[in-house]
Amino acid sequence: MSADNTVKVGVLGCGTVGTQVVRLLRQIHSDLQARSGANLEISGIAVRDLDAPRDVSVPRNLLTTDMDAVIDGADLVIELMGGIEPARTAMLRALKRGASVVTGNKAVLATHGPELYEAAAENNTDLYYEAAVAGAVPVVYGLRESLVGDRITKVLGILNGTTNYILDQMDSQGWSYEQALKEAQALGFAEADPTADVDGLDAAAKCAILASLAFHTRVNLDEVAVEGIREITAVDMAEAKRSGKVIKLVAVAERIPGPNGDAVSVRVAPTLVSLSHPLATVGGAFNAIVIESENAGRLMFSGPGAGGAPTASAVLSDVVAAAGHIAHGGNAPRENAYAMLPILPQSQVKDALQVRMQVTDEPGTLAHIAKIYEKYGVSIAAVSQRLASSTQGTEQATLVLTTHAAPMHAHEAVLSDLSSATHAVTLVENAMRVEGE
Amino acid sequence: MSADNTVKVGVLGCGTVGTQVVRLLRQIHSDLQARSGANLEISGIAVRDLDAPRDVSVPRNLLTTDMDAVIDGADLVIELMGGIEPARTAMLRALKRGASVVTGNKAVLATHGPELYEAAAENNTDLYYEAAVAGAVPVVYGLRESLVGDRITKVLGILNGTTNYILDQMDSQGWSYEQALKEAQALGFAEADPTADVDGLDAAAKCAILASLAFHTRVNLDEVAVEGIREITAVDMAEAKRSGKVIKLVAVAERIPGPNGDAVSVRVAPTLVSLSHPLATVGGAFNAIVIESENAGRLMFSGPGAGGAPTASAVLSDVVAAAGHIAHGGNAPRENAYAMLPILPQSQVKDALQVRMQVTDEPGTLAHIAKIYEKYGVSIAAVSQRLASSTQGTEQATLVLTTHAAPMHAHEAVLSDLSSATHAVTLVENAMRVEGE
Repeated sequence: MSADNTVKVGVLGCGTVGTQVVRLLRQIHSDLQARSGANLEISGIAVRDLDAPRDVSVPRNLLTTDMDAVIDGADLVIELMGGIEPARTAMLRALKRGASVVTGNKAVLATHGPELYEAAAENNTDLYYEAAVAGAVPVVYGLRESLVGDRITKVLGILNGTTNYILDQMDSQGWSYEQALKEAQALGFAEADPTADVDGLDAAAKCAILASLAFHTRVNLDEVAVEGIREITAVDMAEAKRSGKVIKLVAVAERIPGPNGDAVSVRVAPTLVSLSHPLATVGGAFNAIVIESENAGRLMFSGPGAGGAPTASAVLSDVVAAAGHIAHGGNAPRENAYAMLPILPQSQVKDALQVRMQVTDEPGTLAHIAKIYEKYGVSIAAVSQRLASSTQGTEQATLVLTTHAAPMHAHEAVLSDLSSATHAVTLVENAMRVEGE
Repeated sequence: MSADNTVKVGVLGCGTVGTQVVRLLRQIHSDLQARSGANLEISGIAVRDLDAPRDVSVPRNLLTTDMDAVIDGADLVIELMGGIEPARTAMLRALKRGASVVTGNKAVLATHGPELYEAAAENNTDLYYEAAVAGAVPVVYGLRESLVGDRITKVLGILNGTTNYILDQMDSQGWSYEQALKEAQALGFAEADPTADVDGLDAAAKCAILASLAFHTRVNLDEVAVEGIREITAVDMAEAKRSGKVIKLVAVAERIPGPNGDAVSVRVAPTLVSLSHPLATVGGAFNAIVIESENAGRLMFSGPGAGGAPTASAVLSDVVAAAGHIAHGGNAPRENAYAMLPILPQSQVKDALQVRMQVTDEPGTLAHIAKIYEKYGVSIAAVSQRLASSTQGTEQATLVLTTHAAPMHAHEAVLSDLSSATHAVTLVENAMRVEGE
């Protein structure tokens, strides 16, 4: 940094978000200077293709394909390329040179986070990533700075706008998954290959980052139990509505006390959310995060989870913080205060489960089913049964059974026994976790 | 600060919040040390009455009535006495000595904020006040740190849990204001003298603080236009429900562009909130803040707005930040980057208004009323009329008319003309601003 508090900013990648960041760095330059105490000067913008069409707000004389030169000439590097490589190598190079790094790259943080956090700590510099989770919603700040004097027990989130939009349309329009996906693709809310979104991988990466932050531990993407939304049917949505709930793709990060100390569980799955729960009303492509802590109680943050301008806003908040540290000192060594909590195996995680099944409508059926739950120590919270159809002279009924929280291995044993009880249970249609009883 | 990073903490006041803060400072001491990089040591606790009954978690040997001694022996002063004096004098003494100050005192910030912020800036120390607005909800952090790279246009909030509880009960139970207040008092949600809450003064103080922070200006409590909830009737609540809305005490801080630059409006009033607006579902004693900004879009924060533990959590987040700065340096001179925006006179503020009136049900009435609105340039958004009663042979109808946004002076001229149009309009029953069309 020069004597006049100039901070040289190198930008890696200039797509939708990068363009907005460059525009704002120039447009509100004096605001950013007043707030950070630093004169933010763009020293270079690394791109793959110099000749690609670009917005007029991007100064062409700063574009280069020499990424290393941009990194080496910067006090602060903004990484907006996405993907694992070359982002990982570029960020490590910057951190090892003592430059601060601001990134919106969830993929690299969820898979190589520890390596990057350590490089930042070793070189006494900042690695900030507000934009990597829930766009402009300042949940990373909330966890890192605001709840720092509290003990977080659980983080629940709707972290993927695409799947929330699809489920929202299925719920409100009565559409099938395929119809809703097609609509989302036509509107640009879902990509041609929607795998990362609909299989829950995007939400899982974000949840791994939140869990690491909330519990001062390290959770890798491959430690997250993930289930996507492809299998959700219009019937599932209608049944959810019937029981006063709505299906959301919910990410859960939980600190679970045990006899040998705390463990952590991180999971992403379609979840039946009670309409009274704050996550139930989060519609469209919005993101929301509920944080439960010992003292602050239940806090919720919500807002747009994606988009160029909201994500750029999150990037700039990190830039101001990091530039302030470069100009005035003072990044506390927090990220390396790790507790290294073990991951609780998914079979031991406790959840309430709602099971929908077709049963034979005759005396003894319910008693038979209840006995299976009792056998594995799973406590029943609610049952509702209604006549469904008449097949070959036997009356069929739909039974919806909700349990209290129980370990997943017990739920699985119950489901296996239910499937074998072919006289009483004709078909186990659906089993889904429940939030907010 | 000593060489081993010990930060001496002086606590002023030891009521509900103070007791929780002292408890947590001792109970999670090592957590706080890991996160702040400082060894937080309580050096003294100033109280008025040494012999008052206290929780066992408060160490009696640290109690003293000598407030100045506590201030002068501390690197960081936590002010939790409330009220204007002696809080103001104590905080100024601490700041002038170069100590950092953390406070939850909205009253003193809303009336003597500038003096205190200046003292902090002059002495290059921190003045933090997360707990002064919305308890544990980290809205001060959000505005000061997270949205620092954005331009905030509007802040909307439910900032007083007592009035939100009362209105919520009126809405859900059909109670009168008096009934709901009595219930809130019985449950400890409202004080014996509820003036500060029900007349909107508490919300106004918090909104003055938020406006100052959001727009980098200075808004004093006496510059806030305030209207309380005493006049709200069960009929008003029922009429709101009929039009798909709910009445909330909403605080608004708005940046309003004008030909001679921006101005600011800060107002607190009962407001008809559309059920689709995020503030509509904030129930009970909860607080919520919606922040609208140019790039991040619409963000919402919500959570418990009061209570010992949530407020203590907010205090401790500030303590960790301030202690980190004392131990490692780095408080950027942000608070004094003021824009000093003028306050827009209330008569020029634009709002949508919903007016409920009793009218004579005969040809020409609606045309007559519409003409009054037209005369003052107020555009009508929606009208609904229904038969009300028959008085002395003339049919009476209830007319509910909602306008688009228009200046308050035009609304007042319309209301005055409506009151004079005694043949067409029998009674103007209610006029209330509308949010979220």
